[in-house]
Amino acid sequence: MNNLIDYMQDIGKRAKKAARVIANADTGKKNAALLAIAQEIETQQIAILKANELDMVAGAENGLDDALLDRLALNEERVQGMSEGLRQIAALTDPVGEVSQLNARPSGIKVGQMRVPLGVIGIIYESRPNVTADAAALCLKSGNACILRGGSEAKNSNQAIAACINKGLDVAGLPGDVVQVIETTDRQAVGELVRMEGSVDVIIPRGGKGLIERISQESRVPVIKHLHGVCHVYIDSKADKDMAISIADNAKTQRYGTCNTMETLLVSEDIASTVLPELAAIYGKKGVEIRACKKAKAIIPGAVDATDADWDEEYLAAIISIRVVDDMEMAMDHIHLHSSGHTESIVTSDYSTAMRFLREVDSSSVMVNASTRFADGFEYGLGAEIGISTNKLHARGPVGLTGLTTQKYIVLGDGHIRQ
Amino acid sequence: MNNLIDYMQDIGKRAKKAARVIANADTGKKNAALLAIAQEIETQQIAILKANELDMVAGAENGLDDALLDRLALNEERVQGMSEGLRQIAALTDPVGEVSQLNARPSGIKVGQMRVPLGVIGIIYESRPNVTADAAALCLKSGNACILRGGSEAKNSNQAIAACINKGLDVAGLPGDVVQVIETTDRQAVGELVRMEGSVDVIIPRGGKGLIERISQESRVPVIKHLHGVCHVYIDSKADKDMAISIADNAKTQRYGTCNTMETLLVSEDIASTVLPELAAIYGKKGVEIRACKKAKAIIPGAVDATDADWDEEYLAAIISIRVVDDMEMAMDHIHLHSSGHTESIVTSDYSTAMRFLREVDSSSVMVNASTRFADGFEYGLGAEIGISTNKLHARGPVGLTGLTTQKYIVLGDGHIRQ
Repeated sequence: MNNLIDYMQDIGKRAKKAARVIANADTGKKNAALLAIAQEIETQQIAILKANELDMVAGAENGLDDALLDRLALNEERVQGMSEGLRQIAALTDPVGEVSQLNARPSGIKVGQMRVPLGVIGIIYESRPNVTADAAALCLKSGNACILRGGSEAKNSNQAIAACINKGLDVAGLPGDVVQVIETTDRQAVGELVRMEGSVDVIIPRGGKGLIERISQESRVPVIKHLHGVCHVYIDSKADKDMAISIADNAKTQRYGTCNTMETLLVSEDIASTVLPELAAIYGKKGVEIRACKKAKAIIPGAVDATDADWDEEYLAAIISIRVVDDMEMAMDHIHLHSSGHTESIVTSDYSTAMRFLREVDSSSVMVNASTRFADGFEYGLGAEIGISTNKLHARGPVGLTGLTTQKYIVLGDGHIRQ
Repeated sequence: MNNLIDYMQDIGKRAKKAARVIANADTGKKNAALLAIAQEIETQQIAILKANELDMVAGAENGLDDALLDRLALNEERVQGMSEGLRQIAALTDPVGEVSQLNARPSGIKVGQMRVPLGVIGIIYESRPNVTADAAALCLKSGNACILRGGSEAKNSNQAIAACINKGLDVAGLPGDVVQVIETTDRQAVGELVRMEGSVDVIIPRGGKGLIERISQESRVPVIKHLHGVCHVYIDSKADKDMAISIADNAKTQRYGTCNTMETLLVSEDIASTVLPELAAIYGKKGVEIRACKKAKAIIPGAVDATDADWDEEYLAAIISIRVVDDMEMAMDHIHLHSSGHTESIVTSDYSTAMRFLREVDSSSVMVNASTRFADGFEYGLGAEIGISTNKLHARGPVGLTGLTTQKYIVLGDGHIRQ
C-alpha cells in the first residue's frame, strides 16, 4: 500500500516537472512528436496487435461480454485509425499562446488574456485501447502533461501503445514523462490519482455512469465529467410536419448507443395527432419500442405505458419515451426536471418560440430544427474531442483542445505604478 | 439538526426555482431591481446604521479586535458606497445572451456559443456587511440566484441590507428568492450549503485562508477560490534602474494588506548592487522590514536573514523578502516553487526576456514593467469584481460578471439531420 502511494506520488511529481516543459514547447516540436508517434504506431502494428491478443484471451477467460470484448479488440484498421487520429490532431491549430482582448486601460497599462495549458491532466478510462493514443495526443497538442489510467482488461494493449508514445516523444526531443501510462492494475491507483491535488490539475473520467459518479464523489481534483445523456426533442405546435418527423426519426434511430441520441420525445398537443401516427409507423418498422404517456398512447395504440422512471432513463437502445405536452412551457418544465443537461432540440417554424427555447433551456447544447445527433466535437468543428462535458463550469459541451486550456491575464506596462 | 437541514434544503429549492426566473429576466428588469435596491438602501440608511450599531456593540462585547471591528463598521459614507456600487453594476453591460463564434459547418448547421448564467451561487463571507449588497448585485446582474452567508458578527447589518434587497426585487417584479440571506448563525449551515450539489452550482468563499481551505476541503460543489497572494517582482539584469526601483517600491508599499501586494522581490545578480541600496533606503524610510538571502544581505547590511519559511509567506504587512538570483531561469524556478499563482511581474527592457516571462510563468496575472498592484477587476476594466480566483479552471484572476456566467453551445438548423 505504501509502495502504491509512493509510486503514484512519483508519477505526479514527474508529470508536474514534464508539464513545465510541454507547456513551453513550440507548436513545431509538439507536432513533430505527434507525427513520430503516429509513425511508430504503424511500425509497431504487429507488436500492438500481439499485445492486444493477450488482452483478448485474458478477457475471454475472465468472461467479459461481447460488447466489452468488441471495444477491447484492435485490428489493422483500428490501429491505422489511431495513427490517422494523431495526424489529424497535429494538423489542428495550436490554442496555446493565443492572446485576446488586449486593450489599453485608462491607467496606461494594456490588459489581455493569454491561453495557456491546464498543467497535468489525469484521464481514467475503460476498455478501448485507442483512447490511450487519442487522449495522449489531445493533451500533448494542448501543452499538457497527462497521466493515463486505462482499464486493467486492456493493460497489454495500453502498454504497447504507451511504448510508441514514449518513442515518439523521445524522437521529438520531449521528455517521456509528458505522457505516463499507469502500469499497476491496482484499483487503489485511481483513488490516489484523484486525490493528488498538488500535482494533478484536472481529472477526466471516460466510461460508464458508475465510474464517473464514483470519481466525482472521491475526487479532490476538479473533474470534467460527462454523466449521461437524457436528450429531448420537442415538436412545437408550429413545427413543419415533415421536418419534425425527419428530425425525431434521425435523433432516435441514426445510432442508438450514443449519448446525444434522443431518449424522450415531447410533442405539443396541437400537433400530436398530425405527427405521431406516421412517426410511430417509422419507429415500428425500425423495431423501436415506444413507451408513451396516456395522451400519446391514445394516438399510438401499440405503445407501452411509460412509467415515471422512463422520463429519467438513458436507454442507449431501440426504446423511446413519448410525452404529449400542453405547450412549450410544459415541455421546458419537463426538460428542466428530467434532462441530464446534455442536448435538447426544438422543431418549430415560429421565430419567437425558437429564440425563447434557445435562451431558456439550460443544457450544454440547445438546438433549433436540427437533430440532437449533431452534438459532437467533430460536427461542431473542434477537430477532435476528449469527451462531452455536462459540467457548467469551465468546459461545457464537446471538449476539444481549447477545453484543455485556460486563460491567464497578461499586463503590459512601461514602468506603470498604481496611484 | 434536522431542522437546519430542512431549512437549508428549502433555501436551495427556492433558489433553484428563482434561478430560472432571473436567468430569463431581461436587462431592463435586472437594472430596475439594482436601482431600486440602491434607492432603498439610501432610504433605509438610518435603519441599516442602527442594525450595524447592534453588531458593533455585540462585537465589542465578544472581544473582536480593532481590525475586525473596523471591517464590520458601517457609516453614512460606507452605506452611500453600497448604493453607488449597485448603480455602477446597473451601468455595466449585461453578459447574458451574448452569442459568439456562430459559424456555418459543412453539414449546413450553424454552431455558436451563448453566454448564460451559472444558476445558483453560494457566497460565504466574513464581517464586511457591504459584501451582502455587492455580491447580490453581481449575481443579480449576471442572471444568477444567490444564497449569501455572512459572518454571524454582522447578522443584524446583513439582515437590514437583505430587507432592502428584497424590497428592490419586489419593486422590479422579481421574486425575493433571487437573493436569499441565510438567517441562522449555526455554523453547520455552511457545511450544508457546500454539500447541496443538487441545487447550488458554485461556491465562492470570501475571507481568510482558513475559511477558504476548510470550504475547499468540505465542498461537493465546485469552488471558485482565492487562496492567498504570494506575489513576486523579478528585476532582470536588463531592467531600467529607475523603473525597477519605482515598481518594486509601489508593488510593496502602495498598500500592505492587499493580496496583489508583492511579498518577495527577486533580483538578478547582475543588477543587484545597482538597485538594492537605493531601494533598501526607500523601504527603510517607509519602515519596511527587509528579510534577505545571503547575497542580498551583503548588499543591504541592515537586513534580517530570510528563513526558508519566508519564501512562502503572505506577510500582508510592511515586511518584504528579497532574494538575489543568477538569472531569469532561477527566478522562474523560485516562482514556480513558491508562488501562490496570483500575480508576478518582471522588470526588463529586453524583448525576448519579457515575452518568455509572460509565456512561461503560470499565474493568474503575469506582468511586464508594471506594479503587481494593478491585478484588480477595476484596473482590468471588469467594472466590478467578486474576487480574484487562483483556480485554473473556469475563472482565473479577477472575477467580474463574465466569470459568473458560462457558455452553452447553440445549433441553428433548418431541418438538418445527421447522415
